[in-house]
Amino acid sequence: MSLSGNAEFMRRAIALASENVRTGAGGPFGAVIVRDGSVIAEGVNCVTRTNDATAHAEVTAIRAACLALGRFALHGCEIYSSCEPCPMCLAAIYWARMDRIWFANTQADAARIDFDDAFLYREIALPLSERAIPAAMMLHDEAWESFQLWRESPTKTPF
Amino acid sequence: MSLSGNAEFMRRAIALASENVRTGAGGPFGAVIVRDGSVIAEGVNCVTRTNDATAHAEVTAIRAACLALGRFALHGCEIYSSCEPCPMCLAAIYWARMDRIWFANTQADAARIDFDDAFLYREIALPLSERAIPAAMMLHDEAWESFQLWRESPTKTPF
Repeated sequence: MSLSGNAEFMRRAIALASENVRTGAGGPFGAVIVRDGSVIAEGVNCVTRTNDATAHAEVTAIRAACLALGRFALHGCEIYSSCEPCPMCLAAIYWARMDRIWFANTQADAARIDFDDAFLYREIALPLSERAIPAAMMLHDEAWESFQLWRESPTKTPF
Repeated sequence: MSLSGNAEFMRRAIALASENVRTGAGGPFGAVIVRDGSVIAEGVNCVTRTNDATAHAEVTAIRAACLALGRFALHGCEIYSSCEPCPMCLAAIYWARMDRIWFANTQADAARIDFDDAFLYREIALPLSERAIPAAMMLHDEAWESFQLWRESPTKTPF
């Protein structure tokens, strides 16, 4: 695991971000995933081009890396993102079990060009009742069955 | 926008979750997206089946709903998830501009069957320096160019 970031990889992530704007393909965000000193996957923001609200650069790169390695966990991998991951992307990096994160622009920079990253970090830390999108629990007593099935499954693949 | 949840939709989400375990397809999570009183998309957790760390039920359902409607924003839609969305899925719901969230199992329930949802909520609220996955900024001065291009782009599609 590198203790200092590799400028070559970050410059590639930034170049992907700039190119994504120049071509009109999407937002100014790029990411590369590195393993053993080599890039194994790249991603750009393609929310508008692919009509997929989840298609941020990091998520796109994680999907590509999972595909390249044929597995759902990316132990041993580092991500270079041209911008600090939003909460969706940060949690995706955790679920992918990555080793380390490098970023260039910050969530405060993103706020300056009208992206919601900083807002989302504040929202997610709030209690349910104070969030902008209303959320409520229902049928709690009926839902445990699905978790009980998982707990008892002899064939499950934990992730 | 409904002020109380529709039990039929939540029972469908729970049934999807249970069925996903019974068939061995993936984790105990299902979600349905509803618009004008009708289900427009469904999703199950397919992380292990598709080798995609980001393929949680809500993310899968959001992608399907975006595809069904041909747009990247889901204004007017509500999501019924068999479990409280993790931070990745919650932020995805925000990015998709959905109206409302209903859930059945909670992040505490998920912790009881060894899923990291509650841990992730705690992690994301921490300062960078205290998180389990190391994260650091680099080449900050070189990255603004991509944001400046976005700011000045006459052809961009905001999202």
